Amino acid sequence: MENIKSYIEENKDRFLEELFGLIRIPSVSSRKENKPDMHKAAEYIRKSLLDAGADMAEVISTDGHPVLYAEKIIDPALPVVMVYGHYDVQPAEPLDLWKSPPFEPEIREGKIWGRGADDDKGQLFMHVYAFEYMVKTGTLPCNVKFMVEGEEEIGSPSLVKFCHANKEKLKCDVIIVSDTSMIGPDVPSITTGLRGLSYVEVEVRGPNRDLHSGLYGGAVANPVNVLARMIASLTDENNRVTIPGFYDDVLEASPLERKEMAKAPFDIEQYKKDIDVDELSGEEGYSTMERTGIRPSLDVNGIWGGYTEEGAKTILPAKACAKISMRLVPNQSPEKIDNLFIKHFESIAPPGVRVSARVLHGGEGYVSPVDHPAYLAASRAYEKTFGKKPVPFRSGGSIPIISRFEKVLGVKSILMGFGLESDAIHSPNENYPLGNFYKGIETIPLFYSYYTKKPE
Amino acid sequence: MENIKSYIEENKDRFLEELFGLIRIPSVSSRKENKPDMHKAAEYIRKSLLDAGADMAEVISTDGHPVLYAEKIIDPALPVVMVYGHYDVQPAEPLDLWKSPPFEPEIREGKIWGRGADDDKGQLFMHVYAFEYMVKTGTLPCNVKFMVEGEEEIGSPSLVKFCHANKEKLKCDVIIVSDTSMIGPDVPSITTGLRGLSYVEVEVRGPNRDLHSGLYGGAVANPVNVLARMIASLTDENNRVTIPGFYDDVLEASPLERKEMAKAPFDIEQYKKDIDVDELSGEEGYSTMERTGIRPSLDVNGIWGGYTEEGAKTILPAKACAKISMRLVPNQSPEKIDNLFIKHFESIAPPGVRVSARVLHGGEGYVSPVDHPAYLAASRAYEKTFGKKPVPFRSGGSIPIISRFEKVLGVKSILMGFGLESDAIHSPNENYPLGNFYKGIETIPLFYSYYTKKPE
Repeated sequence: MENIKSYIEENKDRFLEELFGLIRIPSVSSRKENKPDMHKAAEYIRKSLLDAGADMAEVISTDGHPVLYAEKIIDPALPVVMVYGHYDVQPAEPLDLWKSPPFEPEIREGKIWGRGADDDKGQLFMHVYAFEYMVKTGTLPCNVKFMVEGEEEIGSPSLVKFCHANKEKLKCDVIIVSDTSMIGPDVPSITTGLRGLSYVEVEVRGPNRDLHSGLYGGAVANPVNVLARMIASLTDENNRVTIPGFYDDVLEASPLERKEMAKAPFDIEQYKKDIDVDELSGEEGYSTMERTGIRPSLDVNGIWGGYTEEGAKTILPAKACAKISMRLVPNQSPEKIDNLFIKHFESIAPPGVRVSARVLHGGEGYVSPVDHPAYLAASRAYEKTFGKKPVPFRSGGSIPIISRFEKVLGVKSILMGFGLESDAIHSPNENYPLGNFYKGIETIPLFYSYYTKKPE
Repeated sequence: MENIKSYIEENKDRFLEELFGLIRIPSVSSRKENKPDMHKAAEYIRKSLLDAGADMAEVISTDGHPVLYAEKIIDPALPVVMVYGHYDVQPAEPLDLWKSPPFEPEIREGKIWGRGADDDKGQLFMHVYAFEYMVKTGTLPCNVKFMVEGEEEIGSPSLVKFCHANKEKLKCDVIIVSDTSMIGPDVPSITTGLRGLSYVEVEVRGPNRDLHSGLYGGAVANPVNVLARMIASLTDENNRVTIPGFYDDVLEASPLERKEMAKAPFDIEQYKKDIDVDELSGEEGYSTMERTGIRPSLDVNGIWGGYTEEGAKTILPAKACAKISMRLVPNQSPEKIDNLFIKHFESIAPPGVRVSARVLHGGEGYVSPVDHPAYLAASRAYEKTFGKKPVPFRSGGSIPIISRFEKVLGVKSILMGFGLESDAIHSPNENYPLGNFYKGIETIPLFYSYYTKKPE
C-alpha cells in the first residue's frame, strides 16, 4: 500500500502529461469530422499500454470506430480480469460556457479540467497506471486484458459484433469498469444498477416552406406548436410517461428494497444547491433517488425549429425537430420501447402535419449482484483506501454495453467508478479531481490482490 | 395608358438593373452586422429618387436605421400624396433552401428572385418609376413625398418618433403603400385590413448547466419539456388562445360581414397544394379566410434548446427558448396583449424553473374605409389595368406603422399591393413576377390621375 502511494508520488507528473495528451485528442464519436481523431486516440492508448507492460496491444478496425485490445498473460492457469473503458467523448458544446477550452486540459483547484477528464479518459488511465505499477513491481497476480472502445457515447453499435466475433480472445472471469460516480467524495460507493436507454429523433413537417406568419398564421398547423403539444402529451400531470405499455415491464421495487435504498446518504439541499434549482420534480410517489435509480424517465435532449437567431422573424416554420430519450430500468427492452414510442408518436400527430421518428441509439439496463466474488473484492479494496465500506448504489445513468457483455460473453461486470456528480460529465467544464484519480490508481491493485486470493 | 406601357418597354432593362443593385445590399434590419448596409440602401434610394426627378432627397439618421425622405412640390395648392415603403428585409435564413443566393438577384421563369424582390424593394421601386414617368412626361398632377424606412421588419421603432418630430414636413392628404398582396394574379384586390402584432421572446431556465440525462433524468424539471408544456397550454383543443382576456377587445364580425367576406374568390384546394399540406387547421367555427382576416392567432416562430447537432447527446438542457408572436385584429392593443401574455406565461411556470419573457416588437391592426376618395381612385386604377374591379380584402399580415400614421399624422393609408402569396416573402426563394412589377408601374400613375380629378 505504501509502495503504490510513493509510486504515484514519483510518477504523477508523467501520468498527468500522458493523460493530457489523450484529452487533447477531440475524440467525439458522434461527429463525422472527428473520425481521424478516433484512430489517433486508440493508437495513443495502444502505445500507453505497451509502455505500461502489455505483451501485445492492437487497434482493431470495426464498421465504426476502432477497438483497442491489449493483454498480458502471465499464466494461463490464473484468472483473467478484463478492463473495459472507452476513449470516445461527448460533444463539448456549448463551447462558450467552458472556463478553459475543452480539449486543452489544465489543472485548477486540484482538478483536471477538460472533456473526458472523468468520462472516461481519466477513469480509464487509472487502470493503465495501476496495471503498470503491478507489472513494474512484480505484483500482478493474474492475467489482464484491456478492451477500450470508441463508441460508448453513441451506444456501442460495433462492440457487440466485436464481442460476438472474438469470444475466445475476450474470455475472462470478470470485467471491471470505471465509468461511474461515487455518491460523494467521502461516501465511496459501487454502482450495482444502471438504467437502459432508448434515444429517438423526431421531426414534424408542415408546409413546404417557412410561411409568413401573418398571411398564414391561424389557418395552417404550425409544426413547432404541434411538436410542443405532442411532447407535452408524452407525460401526464404526475410526470408519468403516457406512452401505452411503457411501464408494462418495469419491475416494481418492494417496500423493503425501497426502505434499504432510502438509507443511502443523500443530502437533498446540497443536491439542489449544486445544480441551482429551488424545487425538484419527478414522478409522483417516488423519492429523488428512486426517480433516477429504479424508475424510467423521458427527457427532451434538444429541440429546434424556425428562426432562432437574433431579433424577430415572423414565420410559421416549415418543420420542427427534437431529440427525445427515455431512461429505462432493468427488464424494459429498449427495442420494445423504441417501437412503442414511434407507434404512439405517429398516432398522436394531428391533421396538417407529417411526423417521423427514428432511433439513434439505445441499450438495456443492468443489475450487478452484491455477493459476486469480484464485488466483494472491490468492496474490500474501497474499504481499505477510503476507510469505509462502499455503499451499493443504483445509478440513473446507462452503459448499454454492460448488459450485452453478460449476454454475449457470459461475464458479470463490476462498476468500480471513482467519479463525482460534480465532475459535470456530458456538461461544460467537465473535471476530475486529482484526489479521485490517485485514489483510483491506489484502489485498483488492491482489487486484483483480493480478487485472486482465497476469501479470508 | 399606351405611353406608360411603351415607357416601361423602353426602360425595363435599366429598371431591373437599378432594382437589382438595391437587392444586392443585404439590408437585414434585425442583424447588427448589417448596420452599414442599411445606410448604403438608404443612400442608394436617395440617388434613385433624385434621378427620377425629386426636388430633394435626404437620408436622415434616427436612433435606429436611417429614414429616406424625398419630395417634389409642384404647387403648394395641390394635394400631397405620400408614398411609404421600406428598404429593410427579413433575414434570408435558412440559406440552403434558396435556389439562387438571396442577395444575388436574377430573372428565372419570368420572375425576379431574391430577398426583398417583392417585400418591399420591388414594390417600392414601382413607385420610383411611376413617379419618374409622370415627371418626365409632365403628367404629375400633384405634389409627391416619399418616406422610406429601414425598420419595418422589426416593428418601425424609430419611425413613430420621426413622424412626431416631422409632422409639418410629412403633411399630406393620403399615404399610398405597396407592401401587400393581391388575392391572385387574375384577382386584383386592395387590402382594407391588417392584423396587429405582439412578438415576444421567452426563456425557461432550469439547472445551472446541462445535466447528464441519466444521472438526473426523472428527478429534475427539464426546461425543454416544461417549455413544450407551457406552449401547448397557450391554445386549447379548438385552437383558441387560452391567455385570460386575450379575446376581450376582439370585435366580432357580424353575420352579414362574414357573408360578404365569403364571396371573395378563394380556392382552398389550390391554397393547400401551394403550401403542400393535406389539411388546414385553425380556430374552430371560422373559415380559412376568416382565421387570417378577422381572427387573432398565436404562432411559435422559433424554438431552441439543448443539443441540436448531429447524433445523440444525453443531456437534460439548462434552458430552452422560443419566439412567440400573436397576430391581433383591429381594436386589440398590442401593449395590452404583451402584458397579458407575459403575466400569464409567468403564472403558468411550474416549480423548478425560472421563466422570463420580453417583448421584441409589436403594432396595432388597421382598417381602411372603402369609401375614401383615395380608395375609390385606387380601385378605378386597378380596374383600368386589370380589366376587373379589385376586391376589398382583409389581410392576415401586419404593417404596424400604418395604424400609427393615422394616429400621429391623421392620414389614412391606401394599401395598393401588387404582390402574390406565391412570392414567398419572408421565406426562402422570395420572388416577384415581372408582370406584377410592370403592372404596378402602369397602375400607379392612373391612381394619381383619378385621385386628383373631380369624381366623374
